[in-house]
Amino acid sequence: MPTVSSPLRVGICGLGTVARGVVRVLRENSEIIQLRAGRPIVVTEVASRRARPEVDLAGAGFSTDVTSLPNHPEIDVLVELIGGEDTALSLIESALMAGKPVVTANKAVLARHGDELQQLASKQGVSLGCEAAVAGGIPVISALEHGLAGNEVEWVAGIINGTCNYILTAMARSGQSFETALADAQRLGYAEADPTFDIEGVDAAHKLTILSSLAFGMDHRFSEIHVEGISGVTLEDLGYAGQLGYRIKHLGIARRSAAGVEIRVHPTLVPETHLLAHVDGVMNAVLIHGNAAGDTLYYGAGAGELPSASAVVADLIDLARGTALPPAANRAVDIPVIPIQQNVSAHYLRIPSSDRPGVFARVATLLSEHEISIEAAIQRAQAIHTESEEHWVPIVIVTQPVIEGKVTEAVAAVQALPEVVGEIVRIRVDDLDGH
Amino acid sequence: MPTVSSPLRVGICGLGTVARGVVRVLRENSEIIQLRAGRPIVVTEVASRRARPEVDLAGAGFSTDVTSLPNHPEIDVLVELIGGEDTALSLIESALMAGKPVVTANKAVLARHGDELQQLASKQGVSLGCEAAVAGGIPVISALEHGLAGNEVEWVAGIINGTCNYILTAMARSGQSFETALADAQRLGYAEADPTFDIEGVDAAHKLTILSSLAFGMDHRFSEIHVEGISGVTLEDLGYAGQLGYRIKHLGIARRSAAGVEIRVHPTLVPETHLLAHVDGVMNAVLIHGNAAGDTLYYGAGAGELPSASAVVADLIDLARGTALPPAANRAVDIPVIPIQQNVSAHYLRIPSSDRPGVFARVATLLSEHEISIEAAIQRAQAIHTESEEHWVPIVIVTQPVIEGKVTEAVAAVQALPEVVGEIVRIRVDDLDGH
Repeated sequence: MPTVSSPLRVGICGLGTVARGVVRVLRENSEIIQLRAGRPIVVTEVASRRARPEVDLAGAGFSTDVTSLPNHPEIDVLVELIGGEDTALSLIESALMAGKPVVTANKAVLARHGDELQQLASKQGVSLGCEAAVAGGIPVISALEHGLAGNEVEWVAGIINGTCNYILTAMARSGQSFETALADAQRLGYAEADPTFDIEGVDAAHKLTILSSLAFGMDHRFSEIHVEGISGVTLEDLGYAGQLGYRIKHLGIARRSAAGVEIRVHPTLVPETHLLAHVDGVMNAVLIHGNAAGDTLYYGAGAGELPSASAVVADLIDLARGTALPPAANRAVDIPVIPIQQNVSAHYLRIPSSDRPGVFARVATLLSEHEISIEAAIQRAQAIHTESEEHWVPIVIVTQPVIEGKVTEAVAAVQALPEVVGEIVRIRVDDLDGH
Repeated sequence: MPTVSSPLRVGICGLGTVARGVVRVLRENSEIIQLRAGRPIVVTEVASRRARPEVDLAGAGFSTDVTSLPNHPEIDVLVELIGGEDTALSLIESALMAGKPVVTANKAVLARHGDELQQLASKQGVSLGCEAAVAGGIPVISALEHGLAGNEVEWVAGIINGTCNYILTAMARSGQSFETALADAQRLGYAEADPTFDIEGVDAAHKLTILSSLAFGMDHRFSEIHVEGISGVTLEDLGYAGQLGYRIKHLGIARRSAAGVEIRVHPTLVPETHLLAHVDGVMNAVLIHGNAAGDTLYYGAGAGELPSASAVVADLIDLARGTALPPAANRAVDIPVIPIQQNVSAHYLRIPSSDRPGVFARVATLLSEHEISIEAAIQRAQAIHTESEEHWVPIVIVTQPVIEGKVTEAVAAVQALPEVVGEIVRIRVDDLDGH
């Protein structure tokens, strides 16, 4: 229990949105923070490569020399909010080398260099807080480290990119095209000018890397994650999914099995009866299945000035009162990542076909020959886009769970049928029940 | 960071469902628990007033003398899972007096004696863990103490009684009557033989007392909570609520304002677009609005052997590694509880009236005279139950938010109209947006 009453002195690197939020939350909530931390938490130094902006730093020093901040004598902890990769990495390393704990929201650095940073932190006996790096204001790291600590985590499935969720929600709700929804997201500040990083799933993969490391005690295996974005999701597929009782969400899924761990990021059909199907707009949610707690879900804002600041300040409070955890306390074994072709999933297949009798039967036979069973189908689907495709009738199928390699083979066989007149769309289906 | 490697020795009082779950989780997950806690956690003693049941105690001692357990030399922490009030209270007190930390799932004892127990724990310099007392396996206490620690919590709204949620879900989904749904819940083990405690809201009020204390740093004010159960909720009201875009959930709501804090437990119409409206069956969920994180929601199993055990074990791990918080670290000020008649809520009103022209206008005029505005209405509602009421037409209204005292006066005035032929039903409406 904290008896020290001297302030925890914070140095912040960066002065973007989240950094300004941290300054603001530490100032506006200083009373409750001091009560909970047992001592004041004070920003003593701020460094940003940009010239000093119009931000009230509440008396903290300011410098454009970011590299000297980690060794500044007036800071006890470095908060790294500069973003990017190389400079951020070297700042975090410098602080750890100087024996100072670090709090960071930098998911890219953690996903790519998390193991070496945790080893360094561990060696130096200081903590490396990263609550803000995953799902913004949602305390999902804290849930894994504290509330669920007695569980073997069996799987995790999360909506962890607000840009993707905004776009898919706008498409499903308003019938906007992907392009229109993306343009709206950019106009509203939910997507970057170059949105590739978000919509192609890289950002979600960074977060899933960190979540998986904490959940399963494994290394950060970013490069081994199977990553798909949402740019291929169409209104047609959202419509057929709806007819079948599903919604399409962009999920990060990590699942432990005897063979290893599946880690993948992709659009997924989830049952509309599941809570995750109702997480809309820019909101995030993470579903964690523990072997004791069962399913628990954590929902909230995945980004933004104050939500992300809330997470940074939570790490600072744990530091100030001595309840921050040592890095990688649950590091266990080297767990293999299962290649995507060995993954077992149900699949949604949309097969553009010419309207001849017997096509469905022929498709069903081919699937059956590849040991794929059909769970549900729309045999006489109305073509949702009919423009130049008046004689095309899509066959829409949801398979039972099957090893992906078989789906790949079966899809190739079906694609070769003369009646199949366009490229087959395949999207994974997950009932979020552990299979 | 933990350097001690000697086991944390646990004494468990009680051998009911949750206690058996704790024994099982500590045994089955011992490897991951030791990794996370930095030392083994071992049950050394179990005491239960009932004769020893057929439970594998994994080598722990067993006694039917519960009173000597707190002072047993072979235990470092008491886990109180005996239930009830008087004996449980004295066991917790004995352990704290002996300088031993306590983990308990006993919401009744905490709601009624939480302040004195926290004072005692604080004086003795030991912790009092209660993650399992609120919302079972959902780590909502951990969220308040860690992940949201930098926030002023502005309000909390939760589905925190699984029995009520099961019954309301069954009524809404299957059109079962309250009585049939309750009988089903009893058959399935979701409701006690005497279900009063759950369905009249007492259990939810216990949990809300504890949540409010943690969220707002206030005393445990159980006796001041406004409590209503679900026994008055009818299929008619579920039906009309649905037509208006709402679902009826039994909520515990606590909200901080300049004047004090509202704390109340009652059936509530919530918008069907809100995530909380989709928390069904026996599941629980707690929505917390912090001034930095915004809305975050925590969902999971609110009871059951393993979920509740997960919460108890989480507290034990925090104890074992030295990251358990001192009791009431955020205790601040004496906050007044706002009397229910001063509460501001929108209201759903169902007014059974005879089918004469002009009744709606007369009702609207009376409401207006009491400064109550109408947000939505079903003027020509189809009577859902028509049996002996063939000439009755309910007027169904949702008001704008208004101080409850005015609603009480207005309802009395409307009730006195000769055209009003039955008792007016009033249920609070909450858009869960802070107002």
